[in-house]
Amino acid sequence: MKERGLDAYLITNNDAHNSGYATGYWKAREWFSGFTGSNGTVIVTHTEVGLWTDGRYFIQAEHELAGSGITLFKMDTPGTPKYNEYLASKLPQGGKLGFDGRTMSMKDYNELNESLSVKEITCTYTEDLVSLIWDDRPSLPAAPAFEHAPRFAGLSAAKKLAAVRGEMVKHDATAYLVVALDDIAWLTNIRGDDIPFAPVVNAYVLITIDTAHIFIDRSKIAAYAANLEAQGFTFHDYNVITDFLRNFSACGKLLYNPEKTNMLLVESLPNDLATKSDLPVDIIMKLKAVKSEVELSNTRNAYYKESIVLTRIIKWLNETADISALTEADVAKEITRLRLQQPDFLQDAFPTIAAYGQNAAQAHYSPGPVGANLKPDGFFLIDTGGNYLDGTTDTTRTIAVGPLRADMKRNFTLVLKGYLAVERTIFPMGTKGIQLDTLARTALWEYGQDFRHGTGHGIGYCLCVHEGPQGLSPKSHVELEPGMLLSVEPAYYQAGAYGIRTENIVEVYEHSETEYGKFYGFRPLMYCPIDTSAIDTNLLNKTEIDQFNNYHAKTLSLLSPRLTEEERIWLSEATRPIGI
Amino acid sequence: MKERGLDAYLITNNDAHNSGYATGYWKAREWFSGFTGSNGTVIVTHTEVGLWTDGRYFIQAEHELAGSGITLFKMDTPGTPKYNEYLASKLPQGGKLGFDGRTMSMKDYNELNESLSVKEITCTYTEDLVSLIWDDRPSLPAAPAFEHAPRFAGLSAAKKLAAVRGEMVKHDATAYLVVALDDIAWLTNIRGDDIPFAPVVNAYVLITIDTAHIFIDRSKIAAYAANLEAQGFTFHDYNVITDFLRNFSACGKLLYNPEKTNMLLVESLPNDLATKSDLPVDIIMKLKAVKSEVELSNTRNAYYKESIVLTRIIKWLNETADISALTEADVAKEITRLRLQQPDFLQDAFPTIAAYGQNAAQAHYSPGPVGANLKPDGFFLIDTGGNYLDGTTDTTRTIAVGPLRADMKRNFTLVLKGYLAVERTIFPMGTKGIQLDTLARTALWEYGQDFRHGTGHGIGYCLCVHEGPQGLSPKSHVELEPGMLLSVEPAYYQAGAYGIRTENIVEVYEHSETEYGKFYGFRPLMYCPIDTSAIDTNLLNKTEIDQFNNYHAKTLSLLSPRLTEEERIWLSEATRPIGI
Repeated sequence: MKERGLDAYLITNNDAHNSGYATGYWKAREWFSGFTGSNGTVIVTHTEVGLWTDGRYFIQAEHELAGSGITLFKMDTPGTPKYNEYLASKLPQGGKLGFDGRTMSMKDYNELNESLSVKEITCTYTEDLVSLIWDDRPSLPAAPAFEHAPRFAGLSAAKKLAAVRGEMVKHDATAYLVVALDDIAWLTNIRGDDIPFAPVVNAYVLITIDTAHIFIDRSKIAAYAANLEAQGFTFHDYNVITDFLRNFSACGKLLYNPEKTNMLLVESLPNDLATKSDLPVDIIMKLKAVKSEVELSNTRNAYYKESIVLTRIIKWLNETADISALTEADVAKEITRLRLQQPDFLQDAFPTIAAYGQNAAQAHYSPGPVGANLKPDGFFLIDTGGNYLDGTTDTTRTIAVGPLRADMKRNFTLVLKGYLAVERTIFPMGTKGIQLDTLARTALWEYGQDFRHGTGHGIGYCLCVHEGPQGLSPKSHVELEPGMLLSVEPAYYQAGAYGIRTENIVEVYEHSETEYGKFYGFRPLMYCPIDTSAIDTNLLNKTEIDQFNNYHAKTLSLLSPRLTEEERIWLSEATRPIGI
Repeated sequence: MKERGLDAYLITNNDAHNSGYATGYWKAREWFSGFTGSNGTVIVTHTEVGLWTDGRYFIQAEHELAGSGITLFKMDTPGTPKYNEYLASKLPQGGKLGFDGRTMSMKDYNELNESLSVKEITCTYTEDLVSLIWDDRPSLPAAPAFEHAPRFAGLSAAKKLAAVRGEMVKHDATAYLVVALDDIAWLTNIRGDDIPFAPVVNAYVLITIDTAHIFIDRSKIAAYAANLEAQGFTFHDYNVITDFLRNFSACGKLLYNPEKTNMLLVESLPNDLATKSDLPVDIIMKLKAVKSEVELSNTRNAYYKESIVLTRIIKWLNETADISALTEADVAKEITRLRLQQPDFLQDAFPTIAAYGQNAAQAHYSPGPVGANLKPDGFFLIDTGGNYLDGTTDTTRTIAVGPLRADMKRNFTLVLKGYLAVERTIFPMGTKGIQLDTLARTALWEYGQDFRHGTGHGIGYCLCVHEGPQGLSPKSHVELEPGMLLSVEPAYYQAGAYGIRTENIVEVYEHSETEYGKFYGFRPLMYCPIDTSAIDTNLLNKTEIDQFNNYHAKTLSLLSPRLTEEERIWLSEATRPIGI
């Protein structure tokens, strides 16, 4: 930094596609700081090193940074500056900030520039200083990829390309740069293994009205490449994208998603091409969020399989005589083992959160290779999901593995009330996530409780477990549409004590049409018992009790044909009606 | 228009302060078109005259425009252009649009200009063509005004001025132009009678860090003027504001509210003064929304008086042997008569909506001088409010004046469920109106019903019945704070048949504080019986029944001391617990 006249250097865990889950090569911030959470930014100045992360990771970051000399900045906490504000205040007038331009989205870059412009601070982003000091840095991923077969994919790449071009025309665009790996996987029907927990492959796509360029290591998909060429795609090497963009001679308007596109790519575009980054919603993100009939029917089947897996896990825990002999990681491994017995299973969709007792108070806890031992006391939380060729799953159950106090049952029931309130709501076309998020919270609010994350997120189809644009949170302003999938996962966390979360994925379906237009509802995809021993039925009204018992009755009837007699008997007990 | 080379002329009912309720002089659009609704814009071209209004007025506008040759454009209806879009499509390249610049807010002007810029259409706004053809146009209002006495106002004008300057400093502002009449009334503690239904006086205020200029007919407030001068205000004539602004020599940044400030004023400001219109929330609008302790305690008293008035009206209707002898206007008049018996009553806060049967399906129906006759059948809706020196009230009750069908009771109960859900919710600091609006609707949504207006609005203190910035609607993004007042008024409308609305004003209060921060709740200000004969108790759960019975028990205990023995007996019956 001194040699280059830099006043500060910024390090993230982003890859060139802003994928969220970084591979070894891209874990620069983790290597530098030791902090392993999914959200974190490091700023190095000549006198201080700071790490910014959000409320999900405060406890974990304090633990992992202990003794490192790195200062933890708790995001969204009163009095804590954002890292942009920190840079603007600490750097001198006309100062210089450095970072690896591949690892910063155009959106973040624009916000950063706005903060820094007041003091005329400039950015240098073409040199990656971390590579100079990280001797054993892993190489970029090079896993093989494959075609997502037509019976799973539904629409061909050519049909999806036509749909995208239809949207481009609506937006007056002559070109569209696609950088998000799951968008590319959806468009091309390619699946791969270049980043953990999502079956995607490193690639870029540039679409014009009559051409489609894919930048990818062609050898990864040798068997499918000719098919894609026949459908209109032209192949280029992954690494030539920057040069290709510099020489791109199309005129008109190019669309890109500033949240996913790294600033190096945008800076490479020719000046005479108007770029347009303020799409209300990215074209492919929007198209892939509304699942097709083929995708929906396959997804229901994937959840059917996952329901069997989770039901078996709960039964196993229920019947384990000495629960103290189990570690959290044992449970995570057993889930993966049971998934492998199901057809068309690819990989876990994220590291299973198997969290006993106070560990569950950390919303994104992971047990790692061993984890804590369970005890026959209180709650054990499992948040887990799998990528199947026919769908991506995500489910949370909180299980009583021992005695519960009255307040634990009360809080479990308040969370359940929140889940039930969202699941049963019928809402008119045009309703946004922010309008329904409240329903998951009012029962908790009444007792002065809340949870510091959204109620739900979208989910991919044999893709990422978090997928936009829709969501259920105070920040979600996207209108919900039939065919969208959402998690519903209200929670209760008591730091140092225990955590409760109950989560099902639901699909939005068209419920009815009246003089007020179309009304939509949510239909659960997951059918797996919810621990009745943790419920205080006095806190449920008749509507809630009926709804809950119906869910359990459907669970029993749906799963029974695929269960053994012994499993059926157990499930029949686990789903016995409450409040009667 | 032809003489002046105008391709179109735009006519609104706005006054120079965008007050909402126009006086005679300002009713240009009403005089021109015959349409009397509160929201409407007329566009005259050489071949067509169009009127744009919103969903509240579609039925009324069709009726009032019948035979006029004026085309009704239903705002926010699929396929209907906004009037800006209409102008941009109908006018020629480089065309000319005229309007009276006093009657267009800066915000509307900015939006208009953006639409028209595509075809380089220019605006001419210094000549008012309506005056040239409206021979008997009324003169501008000149009603006397008075000081809002300290025991009602609470804070002095000097203290309010200091609070405003504190906010100006926070926003780096050297000047602040105040145009909204209720903002000026709040700041100066002046009340007047220059527009209908709101006790305000025509004036402008310009505040700097060390001066405060008020532009007003000083003779209107002779007795109070010296007092205001002693508190730091300098007086100017109302009409010199434009000249004063042209010669205003302060440097720095001037704040103004673009929704309230007419574009002629903004265009008069000197070029070297930076203007800032994008305040998240107008300073005085925000300050006056959070009522002081004096204002809150007075307001509770005003609602106490109003509760007596409305309870007497309901008893009177209940005991009237031949309800067919009454017209809607008779009821409205009787309400005003009973208010006049209460101390410190000034005027009705808006024209009482006394709406029998299908008239109530029009959300903003007004019976006019006579109205329809009541019949001993179905529902009768009363939405009414008064301006007292100690507060402004607004309440709606829907009363069964004859037999109800089961579906009518069901819909009444769904609306009641919506009211109760909002009233009982406890919510964390930072919650916005959009997040709570949903609670008023879920019961209706379940039956495919809804209402096409917000759940609630803010309300003034001896000022306007609609006051921002807070609200309860899908468009309300303002965080609710203790001391804010809100209406809660879910509704059901069946065109051509009947309408149901139940409304109380509630205050936001601090309920508790936990590890999740402060939690707030709503406390009703109005205590007046809700018709138990219209309720289907099978649709209410125990929480709702207890909440409803508690509200009625409190109504009885609160009002009894001020009622006659006979009234007490009636009220005791009207508030008898349900569902037992």
